[in-house]
Amino acid sequence: MRILVVNGPNLRFVGQRQPDIYGSQGLDLVPEMVSQVLGEAAKNIALSFFQSNFEGALIDRLEEAWKEKTDGLVLNAGAYTHTSLALADCLAWIQVPCVEVHISNVFARDESIRHQSFMAHHCVGVIAGFGLMSYALAVQALWHHLS
Amino acid sequence: MRILVVNGPNLRFVGQRQPDIYGSQGLDLVPEMVSQVLGEAAKNIALSFFQSNFEGALIDRLEEAWKEKTDGLVLNAGAYTHTSLALADCLAWIQVPCVEVHISNVFARDESIRHQSFMAHHCVGVIAGFGLMSYALAVQALWHHLS
Amino acid sequence: MRILVVNGPNLRFVGQRQPDIYGSQGLDLVPEMVSQVLGEAAKNIALSFFQSNFEGALIDRLEEAWKEKTDGLVLNAGAYTHTSLALADCLAWIQVPCVEVHISNVFARDESIRHQSFMAHHCVGVIAGFGLMSYALAVQALWHHLS
Amino acid sequence: MRILVVNGPNLRFVGQRQPDIYGSQGLDLVPEMVSQVLGEAAKNIALSFFQSNFEGALIDRLEEAWKEKTDGLVLNAGAYTHTSLALADCLAWIQVPCVEVHISNVFARDESIRHQSFMAHHCVGVIAGFGLMSYALAVQALWHHLS
Amino acid sequence: MRILVVNGPNLRFVGQRQPDIYGSQGLDLVPEMVSQVLGEAAKNIALSFFQSNFEGALIDRLEEAWKEKTDGLVLNAGAYTHTSLALADCLAWIQVPCVEVHISNVFARDESIRHQSFMAHHCVGVIAGFGLMSYALAVQALWHHLS
Amino acid sequence: MRILVVNGPNLRFVGQRQPDIYGSQGLDLVPEMVSQVLGEAAKNIALSFFQSNFEGALIDRLEEAWKEKTDGLVLNAGAYTHTSLALADCLAWIQVPCVEVHISNVFARDESIRHQSFMAHHCVGVIAGFGLMSYALAVQALWHHLS
Amino acid sequence: MRILVVNGPNLRFVGQRQPDIYGSQGLDLVPEMVSQVLGEAAKNIALSFFQSNFEGALIDRLEEAWKEKTDGLVLNAGAYTHTSLALADCLAWIQVPCVEVHISNVFARDESIRHQSFMAHHCVGVIAGFGLMSYALAVQALWHHLS
Amino acid sequence: MRILVVNGPNLRFVGQRQPDIYGSQGLDLVPEMVSQVLGEAAKNIALSFFQSNFEGALIDRLEEAWKEKTDGLVLNAGAYTHTSLALADCLAWIQVPCVEVHISNVFARDESIRHQSFMAHHCVGVIAGFGLMSYALAVQALWHHLS
Amino acid sequence: MRILVVNGPNLRFVGQRQPDIYGSQGLDLVPEMVSQVLGEAAKNIALSFFQSNFEGALIDRLEEAWKEKTDGLVLNAGAYTHTSLALADCLAWIQVPCVEVHISNVFARDESIRHQSFMAHHCVGVIAGFGLMSYALAVQALWHHLS
Amino acid sequence: MRILVVNGPNLRFVGQRQPDIYGSQGLDLVPEMVSQVLGEAAKNIALSFFQSNFEGALIDRLEEAWKEKTDGLVLNAGAYTHTSLALADCLAWIQVPCVEVHISNVFARDESIRHQSFMAHHCVGVIAGFGLMSYALAVQALWHHLS
Amino acid sequence: MRILVVNGPNLRFVGQRQPDIYGSQGLDLVPEMVSQVLGEAAKNIALSFFQSNFEGALIDRLEEAWKEKTDGLVLNAGAYTHTSLALADCLAWIQVPCVEVHISNVFARDESIRHQSFMAHHCVGVIAGFGLMSYALAVQALWHHLS
Amino acid sequence: MRILVVNGPNLRFVGQRQPDIYGSQGLDLVPEMVSQVLGEAAKNIALSFFQSNFEGALIDRLEEAWKEKTDGLVLNAGAYTHTSLALADCLAWIQVPCVEVHISNVFARDESIRHQSFMAHHCVGVIAGFGLMSYALAVQALWHHLS
Repeated sequence: MRILVVNGPNLRFVGQRQPDIYGSQGLDLVPEMVSQVLGEAAKNIALSFFQSNFEGALIDRLEEAWKEKTDGLVLNAGAYTHTSLALADCLAWIQVPCVEVHISNVFARDESIRHQSFMAHHCVGVIAGFGLMSYALAVQALWHHLS
Repeated sequence: MRILVVNGPNLRFVGQRQPDIYGSQGLDLVPEMVSQVLGEAAKNIALSFFQSNFEGALIDRLEEAWKEKTDGLVLNAGAYTHTSLALADCLAWIQVPCVEVHISNVFARDESIRHQSFMAHHCVGVIAGFGLMSYALAVQALWHHLS
Repeated sequence: MRILVVNGPNLRFVGQRQPDIYGSQGLDLVPEMVSQVLGEAAKNIALSFFQSNFEGALIDRLEEAWKEKTDGLVLNAGAYTHTSLALADCLAWIQVPCVEVHISNVFARDESIRHQSFMAHHCVGVIAGFGLMSYALAVQALWHHLS
Repeated sequence: MRILVVNGPNLRFVGQRQPDIYGSQGLDLVPEMVSQVLGEAAKNIALSFFQSNFEGALIDRLEEAWKEKTDGLVLNAGAYTHTSLALADCLAWIQVPCVEVHISNVFARDESIRHQSFMAHHCVGVIAGFGLMSYALAVQALWHHLS
Repeated sequence: MRILVVNGPNLRFVGQRQPDIYGSQGLDLVPEMVSQVLGEAAKNIALSFFQSNFEGALIDRLEEAWKEKTDGLVLNAGAYTHTSLALADCLAWIQVPCVEVHISNVFARDESIRHQSFMAHHCVGVIAGFGLMSYALAVQALWHHLS
Repeated sequence: MRILVVNGPNLRFVGQRQPDIYGSQGLDLVPEMVSQVLGEAAKNIALSFFQSNFEGALIDRLEEAWKEKTDGLVLNAGAYTHTSLALADCLAWIQVPCVEVHISNVFARDESIRHQSFMAHHCVGVIAGFGLMSYALAVQALWHHLS
Repeated sequence: MRILVVNGPNLRFVGQRQPDIYGSQGLDLVPEMVSQVLGEAAKNIALSFFQSNFEGALIDRLEEAWKEKTDGLVLNAGAYTHTSLALADCLAWIQVPCVEVHISNVFARDESIRHQSFMAHHCVGVIAGFGLMSYALAVQALWHHLS
Repeated sequence: MRILVVNGPNLRFVGQRQPDIYGSQGLDLVPEMVSQVLGEAAKNIALSFFQSNFEGALIDRLEEAWKEKTDGLVLNAGAYTHTSLALADCLAWIQVPCVEVHISNVFARDESIRHQSFMAHHCVGVIAGFGLMSYALAVQALWHHLS
Repeated sequence: MRILVVNGPNLRFVGQRQPDIYGSQGLDLVPEMVSQVLGEAAKNIALSFFQSNFEGALIDRLEEAWKEKTDGLVLNAGAYTHTSLALADCLAWIQVPCVEVHISNVFARDESIRHQSFMAHHCVGVIAGFGLMSYALAVQALWHHLS
Repeated sequence: MRILVVNGPNLRFVGQRQPDIYGSQGLDLVPEMVSQVLGEAAKNIALSFFQSNFEGALIDRLEEAWKEKTDGLVLNAGAYTHTSLALADCLAWIQVPCVEVHISNVFARDESIRHQSFMAHHCVGVIAGFGLMSYALAVQALWHHLS
Repeated sequence: MRILVVNGPNLRFVGQRQPDIYGSQGLDLVPEMVSQVLGEAAKNIALSFFQSNFEGALIDRLEEAWKEKTDGLVLNAGAYTHTSLALADCLAWIQVPCVEVHISNVFARDESIRHQSFMAHHCVGVIAGFGLMSYALAVQALWHHLS
Repeated sequence: MRILVVNGPNLRFVGQRQPDIYGSQGLDLVPEMVSQVLGEAAKNIALSFFQSNFEGALIDRLEEAWKEKTDGLVLNAGAYTHTSLALADCLAWIQVPCVEVHISNVFARDESIRHQSFMAHHCVGVIAGFGLMSYALAVQALWHHLS
């Protein structure tokens, strides 16, 4: 099972930026966390990663995922979650099962713009608030969803 | 580790009501799913369940959880998620770590009232859209959060 | 044909409270009014009544009505009409044909919150403004709807 | 007792247009339904009908009803229900008792504009959702209201 | 100087309808009031009157006024003041100087929809609240405006 | 009959400021205009004038008018029309008949804040858009209202 | 192929009114433009025209079009585009393919009310901003749509 | 004079929950505070207390108070203050003089939902922000109001 | 303990204006009421009074209170409560403990603007609805707050 | 005449994505359609195409078009139509005549965000809903506009 | 070059009030800062200062500035920035070039009311967030603007 | 001191585009202006420039600035100022002192979207409306802020 983990703007330096909000662990720990969470099953999952600060690059990458017939997506679109109708439109048509992920609990933050997700309408589900563990739980959820 | 799973209104007959939206599995399957997901670790978790259609009964139960020093909560407040400031106030003061859970992806539904959660402000994180598996993932997330 | 008449908060003392708005007749007159309105047909209808000020108790009762395979519902949810998403969710899944009823013409009252009904989305129709006669008309409408 | 049934725009071809929403029966069945519903009492009611797609013609007709001292009105203003302040102003001043009627349950439809009725403020009550039977129930309600 | 006084819906029976709000004098008193207010100057003004409950008829009449090169308009559009973009569009293009008139002080009424006037954008000025005297003052204002 | 003309902020230099919007005539022309408009009747009217840029001074002056038992008020509150609840509260309690006046047609201006008048709720009527003539028409309207 | 071109309020004098916004050509040029645009194909199209300032007359005409089994509609509803739910309801049920047309680019105008079209929901498409050529392009679009 | 003090959700553990916001004193101190505040007069007041997390139980209790002809109410409805139309409807019809009370100054809190009180419309007055002393001041205010 | 009672616009003639809303007692009765309410303790309180219709004068006076190190404030800002950000900013920086007071229950009045208080954010608490007794209760509350 | 057709995000795979909404024809058919629609005139038009998922690349391309003195633009900005103020700003300053194009009738879709176009303010006109034919009609409209 | 620096409410005690937000330097340092920033050029600038807590006094002073033909204004209207339409109207008509100044970055503060400036519409530019240096920069900007 | 000046979309051709709004000077004049404004101090400032129409490229560049430990930022984000939460999030975490700059006074423009700045929340201050001089003033402000 091939799963692509896509990260949007301001997620390149996770673990280095604002550690009080996002924790100090980097995204390179995710594969290990997946192993820890999924155990044996993790062997059947080929994880690949992509990060860009460009809305267009994220759309390009999702289109490629569609061409590659990727089995599933884990998407943390960062701030584009709340502003990018274009990215949401892409999810809508490629129809690759996708889990929306956030490191912090965006629904608990003060700014109301962060409570609205353009992505949600085209995702299987949402996992938010568990630090990098959110990614591992998303892979697991996808594994169960696709099995 | 003692974890209380609290379900709100219209969740008594899960598996029997609207199976096209919520699936046909009942909540009694959750412990098994937790075992499947957590493996060995599941043995260290004592799960208990509570369901009520009464807002007041849910608050009473959370107050009890606070008195019992329950380690963590998994809360699916059903429609009260979107309307009960009183339940949210309770979460705020008891300060027992809580994961918000939804069977369907409420953030993807049409009615905008379902995109707003009074609970989120007082929860560690949110997991929505994975059927009953949402509960198991929440227990797992709580396990990692509390460990 | 078994029909359940469900009354929500502040409807226990109808006929005694604010008679200038709601009239001075009590709900116990409804069966007689039904007879008067339906004539012979009234004999084929078994009416039962339930009132509670508790949102949860109303949901419990509707769930029971679903288990009892009640043929139809007449529902005056009082103020919960305008605030209870939980009650509306219940109507949505039990799928027992329901007529929404109001003693006064809520759509003509000043407060805009009273012009919005969470119940309407899951009801066959609405009858409002005819005092207790609203209930008798609702039973009649249900009779025609179900026949 | 003279009762005027007034129908607004797009109600000329009821029974022919969108039968899945409005049913396939024409307005000419209403008198028979009134007889069926009211029984003997129906003999004391002189029903007359008026339909127009013109807002102005509807107001003209209501002004006439006022001059003729019509006893009561049954009004289905169609889309004007939601947009015509002028028609509502007319109801306000002629002060002929009026029952607002809708064939479908407008309060259950998706568009929020259909949940607001300019007419309601000047009507005794509202009956919506019972197909053509809505008219018969309205006549009955008016009969009781005026008796 | 030829001035056309145009009255919209529900203004046919002024003096007969809701006298507590609009007074009991009929529009036929306006010419006399104009004389009283304008004195000698009134002789130079040819007043004509038009009333209709039809939005379309009002537009037709304004178009005619444009063709007739009427010098000025006094317009009480009744409820269309607040809802008719079409009538406002007509005022915009015929460019005949117009004074907006209301019998009651619409800006003081409770409903907020009555505080917004589509007409105002295309009128020289507004006079509201002085009963039928509003018309006479409007003729006088127009007289000064055009002189 | 004693009438007080009260002018609010930015009305001291009328005739000098923005003549394209407000004209180039000063307020000192108003008495002459009143004579012109009212003819003989003008002799029975004692006009006095007050202008201030201070919200508090305007309230003080209105309170004095109440103590002096002034017969009527003509009020152009300038921008306070749209922002001063305090001035409106004063009008409400002194209950001296008042006509709201504006030099330009404020209801036709682009900014929506200028379409809302706190004063209107406590005034007999409104006259706007006729330059300084608005004042003379207001005095005339008041004369008829009080006679 | 029979196509009916329907024009709403304030479109009778196109070419004469506000030529700076709408140009100075009259609607009688449309057939020629259609020929120019469609070439040979134009011969297979029977164009008829209807204009009215009355909302009701427009609905009446559309109902007739439905009875006549007209093949397609080109509709410029003028200001009713933005206010007439009744006209939109008519389009909804007659289900004659319709192209919405505007002479100016209404979506580029300042007033936000002109950016919302009740008609759009029931039209194949929209063409706006090309002067009278909008009509010819609409006929062409309809020709391709229906062929 | 019999006064009932009613407390809503999350007020059972006052003095134990979030002491930084609500202080650390329990509701059992209120009678003593009343004595301190009212002095001798306190002897004429019979205070009784009721607390529930159930909206329905609060309504039931208020209905009882009405049957018992209780002289006055002190009501801290907690979060229901801001969400319960049903509780407000109850206050409206029982017409027992009521003082609304809050421990903290809810009008100063950040969330705008806490600035709106459904209760206020049916209360004599409001006292908020003085900790448990709010209750004693409310009793005193009621004492003066009823004397 | 020195306490300054500050009254804003339209409060100079309390007891004379609109007695049905505000009662017929003047502010000069407040000291006596304070004595009555506080008993012996009243002797330790030096009350001074200030009233102005000027927003600027109120701010000036509060600045002076800060310079004088006044112990506490009782503030009834009248309509400025709902419109004066400047007055609120002053309260924010002088940081003299303040109780917000209203004679009527502003939160129960119809206009929604009266439900929002700019002052509340910088006050210890709010007391509204008890006529002049509101002032005495506020002094008492302040006394307890400062002791 | 050189015309540039610019396509925004999610338009690379037109004809392959969601064919039920957008049809199954690819953009490479557009030149042929233009020939079909314009006939001989098509020979005078040099069409070039650009597509990108990057907002910045679209702006870069438009800037180039300005430098190249392109005669006209056909722009389908996809989702950026509704979110990109930056792209609209670019259209505003380059001032190359532009026709806004959409494959589906965006104004008829459910989401209100799709009814608002930032592009419209800087475009000659809009053509939406005719599949790929929208492009050909736009070229034709531009041809007429520029001739 | 004569420049008037106008300060509104709560700016009299700058340097003494809330130093954590506004710094501890007083406005008397501004001339020195101007010298420091402008160097030689400062000699050509005659700075004068005015502060008042009264909206009316600020308008009076601006009117005077207009009569004195002051060359430029630096205006920190404090809270009136966000609430005073009257002050903005004054800026509009006196047409003395004005720079809007704020000590803190008001656009970064939490309350949305502080993001809206009535003044901005009539100012050359805005400088906010640099403590007292904002004034010096404003003088410099004005110097360049007027030179 | 190293300062990076970052320009967003549509700022590449400043001096060439819409000179009536933005002036005809190019960004290459900024260093000279800085020298002029700062005098000697300018020698201690190393200015570098970056412009891109890509949101992602701007974020990439800011991240680099963070890695390079740039001392300060001058940011004119163009239209992204009002739409890019992603860019704002970047400013938030890199925590390099930043001054927001606009060539025109965006707060004075008609469109309300231009009055809201996502950037402001993470900037020291804002300077807008002084043409290219805005940049020089921003450098100066930053110089003072960092010194």
